[in-house]
Amino acid sequence: MEYSEINRIFEEHDKYTILTHKSPDGDTLGCGFGLCYFLRDMGKQANVLNSDGFPERYGFMYADYEPQEFESEYVIAVDIADPQLLGGGLAQYQQEGMVDLSIDHHISNKLFAAKNHVEGDASAAALILYNIMKESGRRISDLTAKCLYTGIATDTGCFKYENTTPQAHIAAAELMAYNIDYANVNRKMFDVKSRGRIEIEQIVTGRMEYFFGGQCSMIVLTKKLVEDSGVDPAEFDGLASVPLSVEGVKIGITVKQRHENVYKISVRTTDEMDASAFCRRFDGGGHIRAAGCEIHGTLEEVKQKLLEEVEKALENG
Amino acid sequence: MEYSEINRIFEEHDKYTILTHKSPDGDTLGCGFGLCYFLRDMGKQANVLNSDGFPERYGFMYADYEPQEFESEYVIAVDIADPQLLGGGLAQYQQEGMVDLSIDHHISNKLFAAKNHVEGDASAAALILYNIMKESGRRISDLTAKCLYTGIATDTGCFKYENTTPQAHIAAAELMAYNIDYANVNRKMFDVKSRGRIEIEQIVTGRMEYFFGGQCSMIVLTKKLVEDSGVDPAEFDGLASVPLSVEGVKIGITVKQRHENVYKISVRTTDEMDASAFCRRFDGGGHIRAAGCEIHGTLEEVKQKLLEEVEKALENG
Repeated sequence: MEYSEINRIFEEHDKYTILTHKSPDGDTLGCGFGLCYFLRDMGKQANVLNSDGFPERYGFMYADYEPQEFESEYVIAVDIADPQLLGGGLAQYQQEGMVDLSIDHHISNKLFAAKNHVEGDASAAALILYNIMKESGRRISDLTAKCLYTGIATDTGCFKYENTTPQAHIAAAELMAYNIDYANVNRKMFDVKSRGRIEIEQIVTGRMEYFFGGQCSMIVLTKKLVEDSGVDPAEFDGLASVPLSVEGVKIGITVKQRHENVYKISVRTTDEMDASAFCRRFDGGGHIRAAGCEIHGTLEEVKQKLLEEVEKALENG
Repeated sequence: MEYSEINRIFEEHDKYTILTHKSPDGDTLGCGFGLCYFLRDMGKQANVLNSDGFPERYGFMYADYEPQEFESEYVIAVDIADPQLLGGGLAQYQQEGMVDLSIDHHISNKLFAAKNHVEGDASAAALILYNIMKESGRRISDLTAKCLYTGIATDTGCFKYENTTPQAHIAAAELMAYNIDYANVNRKMFDVKSRGRIEIEQIVTGRMEYFFGGQCSMIVLTKKLVEDSGVDPAEFDGLASVPLSVEGVKIGITVKQRHENVYKISVRTTDEMDASAFCRRFDGGGHIRAAGCEIHGTLEEVKQKLLEEVEKALENG
């Protein structure tokens, strides 16, 4: 879609419902609240919905947000590739025909809305939304700018990852012209960890094992370890990058127990190894630097199978 | 100085020595090697010097670098605010009149060179150097671009900190037009830690203490702890940001033993507290979010003095 067509939609209706994805991140919420404030500044009514509520760490986006009472005319999904990602709390919107417009940057987008605007090469959905708002010629408020910056920054790991584009940097440069307190946003998004998360990182790094002269590192998360830690199991998500953060490691492996004798394996590699090829040996797959598979057996058997393949891969690589 | 004047200097001479600062970081080395390759590409001779040698983690900058043999005609210091920062290995250049040109972004620059180009508001010295090179109209090689990107990224914490400017983002966007493999650079610069460092973070987070309902956190590094760890004491630098990385903490304090009954205190605060005002109570000082002081007494006395002031500050704040 042309940006002007999307802006015409923002003009044409009066009462908007904006849907964000479950387990919300900075991009979906940055889009949700950024668009909500933009529409309200146009004199429209708009609300942001999320199946799981709004996490406290994004509080700076919704500190003064109040839901408005109105009968919705137009439903917009932001940063949502698949209606399943709306979550149970927004199940009614998963039915066909419920979403009028989808704005997203996932190439895998299911095109589930009546109108779909997908830019698969955009670093973040918030970057698309920013470009749409620019096209409108309307003033963007500081708070909207802050929400959009947060979306771009969080989806690129603060401009660190492969998916960072020149366009993402240029948008950040332009958004810094607003009063967005980006350093504080970035501190909250990237430097602050919960006590539970810190405890867990402490546990797993303390138990990290090294193999092949430190070229391979491994953390093992058994059900017992998770339970004994007394920490919210959700805090154990996203640990897969930890083993590869050690200097000299080429392949970092996270072994997470699913059930008795069933282990989920996450593999991360530097540019010296192919994680996807490694996981294909165990009927898994993924990306060249991040892949996964499932292996059955006792923990010792699983570790031995993995290390045998690591040894071969290191010899070949 | 005008950029054109600096480019005339790059034209006028044939044999350049480039000085970088001791305990080198990504900015000084990014400038050093970036400028060296730029000059060599112009058909000049150029070498990069450092008092401490070039750390392995910056190896991607100098993998194919070979020192050239020549009698130097012109000496350039990059990212060096004070000749003291040249270090003992480059002591001969600390004498007056030894440095012909200094290119730097520290407002505190001592203007020690014959010609000084200082832009105190630049995020990184590498950003200044990039702008100089752009003015020349000459082609910048991929490797030069990669060195300059590294300088800008490292000095801004990957575009995370307060000192990140729109200009830094725009330069990054432009440098991404070269083949710089920025994601891999960023991984090496920001995600990879030595095993010693990981061990230490594990030790200090495991011993982190929380006070006032988690609003204050404290780590204590005694000489004994450092010695018993068996880890290179240099790995203990830069831990001051760790206590503030915990959710809910407003003031993070690092207590490091200097001598018997002498402790160096590093204080980091969120925007809810003033670190500088806090440290002034102990005749220290610094910036609003990062400050320091020294307190004498037994460890228990030092901690109690600190906590009394934290309590007052929390009550007032």
